[in-house]
Amino acid sequence: MSLPRIAVDAMGGDDGVQVMVAGAALALSRNPALNFLMVGDEREVAAAIARHPGLAGRCDVRHAPDVVAGDERPTQALRRARTTSMGLAIDAVKQGEAGAAVSAGNTGALMAMAKLSLRMLPGIDRPALAALLPTLGDHDLVMLDLGANTACDARNLVQFAIMGAAYARIVNGLASPRVRLLNIGSEETKGTDDLRDAAAMLKQAGVALEFSFDGFTEADKISRGDVDVVVTDGFSGNIALKAMEGAARFVADLLRRSFSSSLRSKFGFLISRPATELLRDHLDPNNHNGALFVGLNGVVVKSHGGATALGVAHAIEITARLLEENLTERIAADLANVGIETIQQTARPTPRSADQAAPEHGS
Amino acid sequence: MSLPRIAVDAMGGDDGVQVMVAGAALALSRNPALNFLMVGDEREVAAAIARHPGLAGRCDVRHAPDVVAGDERPTQALRRARTTSMGLAIDAVKQGEAGAAVSAGNTGALMAMAKLSLRMLPGIDRPALAALLPTLGDHDLVMLDLGANTACDARNLVQFAIMGAAYARIVNGLASPRVRLLNIGSEETKGTDDLRDAAAMLKQAGVALEFSFDGFTEADKISRGDVDVVVTDGFSGNIALKAMEGAARFVADLLRRSFSSSLRSKFGFLISRPATELLRDHLDPNNHNGALFVGLNGVVVKSHGGATALGVAHAIEITARLLEENLTERIAADLANVGIETIQQTARPTPRSADQAAPEHGS
Repeated sequence: MSLPRIAVDAMGGDDGVQVMVAGAALALSRNPALNFLMVGDEREVAAAIARHPGLAGRCDVRHAPDVVAGDERPTQALRRARTTSMGLAIDAVKQGEAGAAVSAGNTGALMAMAKLSLRMLPGIDRPALAALLPTLGDHDLVMLDLGANTACDARNLVQFAIMGAAYARIVNGLASPRVRLLNIGSEETKGTDDLRDAAAMLKQAGVALEFSFDGFTEADKISRGDVDVVVTDGFSGNIALKAMEGAARFVADLLRRSFSSSLRSKFGFLISRPATELLRDHLDPNNHNGALFVGLNGVVVKSHGGATALGVAHAIEITARLLEENLTERIAADLANVGIETIQQTARPTPRSADQAAPEHGS
Repeated sequence: MSLPRIAVDAMGGDDGVQVMVAGAALALSRNPALNFLMVGDEREVAAAIARHPGLAGRCDVRHAPDVVAGDERPTQALRRARTTSMGLAIDAVKQGEAGAAVSAGNTGALMAMAKLSLRMLPGIDRPALAALLPTLGDHDLVMLDLGANTACDARNLVQFAIMGAAYARIVNGLASPRVRLLNIGSEETKGTDDLRDAAAMLKQAGVALEFSFDGFTEADKISRGDVDVVVTDGFSGNIALKAMEGAARFVADLLRRSFSSSLRSKFGFLISRPATELLRDHLDPNNHNGALFVGLNGVVVKSHGGATALGVAHAIEITARLLEENLTERIAADLANVGIETIQQTARPTPRSADQAAPEHGS
């Protein structure tokens, strides 16, 4: 059985066409049902594909003369939607020539293009980047937004919570996911006005949304397994995600150092290598690469700009799983079940009391 | 030789008086030059002190009838500066009865009280919470703001950079610290308007500030040892710091699990215990506890609300070191050297070009 075709922006990411094509080849070697539409500079893409026997037969190439730059403003990139590899990969989804698009390019540009081309699900104003993160519990957690929206208001945060809960219900089979807003303290008075407003709206909506809103969480408590959906703006989400990645790598580096600090430790390391390799595998960000733009009317997955071929393969595998499980259709059905009216009504700020409007100096 | 007295808000923090007093006793056992002014409920404090022989002789008690609550708004807490343990601990610094104050209470209230009572250093508008974080390089990095200011404009960020550089010059003996702004990408177009404005101001100021401004850094790259000062707003800084703490704990938990996954791993763990204990020691947030409010005309140190006695002792030891090294005076001298005019001029936004003012949809 063949899966729907996956359009790959072959030119995006720090290492460009070599890594994107190698990632596709690796994913194909693991799952022969995959097939691709590689979008990018025809000659470069063809040359890269030629290096991976077997890939050519499962891969069409579409020429795109331009590339969206990493530092390009979304508004600028939008004007070049018809000539860039990113724009044409998304267009293939719109035209039904591909079931999904994967890109490792400029996040802001990707979101702007996807939003304009594919449009939003009913009731949703903006898409959010959502990913599954490992926890100490028995399933991953859904975290969003991880970098699509630099600034978010209370209404956006409420919609992210609703979409994140739908995602968690589907991928983790949860009846009523536990949802929290990321904040710098767990007390109700902490954080920004938008966070406090969003919390008030979510609390008021109660069980109508088919999830339990458990208030705020701090960034050090999200991996413990007692929260299923963590909601935040794209700036904080990106900072939190990268800080966690950096810390995990830092610990791994320290571990390597301390294990090589003495002969005895080296010996201990050799003996316990299966354990430490399990850990390394678990912590490698490439094994968690691939974030979905939820809220879009179509599947667009963002691969980390610095991902290796292994990481790209993982992002493609996530994309395939989202297609197999009809995730977009199921999120749309889930949101329709909650009701557009409920979503819109929940995401409507209640007027603040005089005390709440008092200036806040800190946290 | 006796050090200047340290005023301790004995009632702040999640575990209150027992932990604060135990932390002071532990710090004293390591450094007999310490002496304290314990501020809090007279009877509770006296009872706690009685449990630690030797502490009573190095410790005066000042009664405070009230406590600032963890979820209290700063504006509310300010009205009770004369009756709360936090307010009276800061007042002792103002009156010269103590050289510094340590509190594990509400960060926003602590900042508001300290700012009002002790005032700012010339040229500085707001204090920032600064801490030293471990790196893979040969010295710690200075990171600020870690939670004092929920929202910061470009002008605040520039001042934090100047203060952070002064801190790094002093504690790490660096002639020209490498300073970066925390952002969600390293390209100039990324992030918020305030971040881009602050970057433009710092770039323009160039060498006049006696540090090198190296642009933006992402949160996964700060511990590598190639940046000396990381500047951010208090919301993102707090998120980043806690995300790193949480990830480190997560890795340690995974490590424990994988080491106990088989008899062979258990054996390897036993042999390499010195290495893993070194690591645990290095990663325990209690061993990095204690952040300074830089920019204040006096030393006020924030201890983490959830710190153990070990963590409180560490915060007290940092405070003692700041006193020994006359850090406030030296930061003031360093800022005077840079020149109030230079600080104020640097922190003055240049008008944006039409293109820069274009709406930004993402990152």
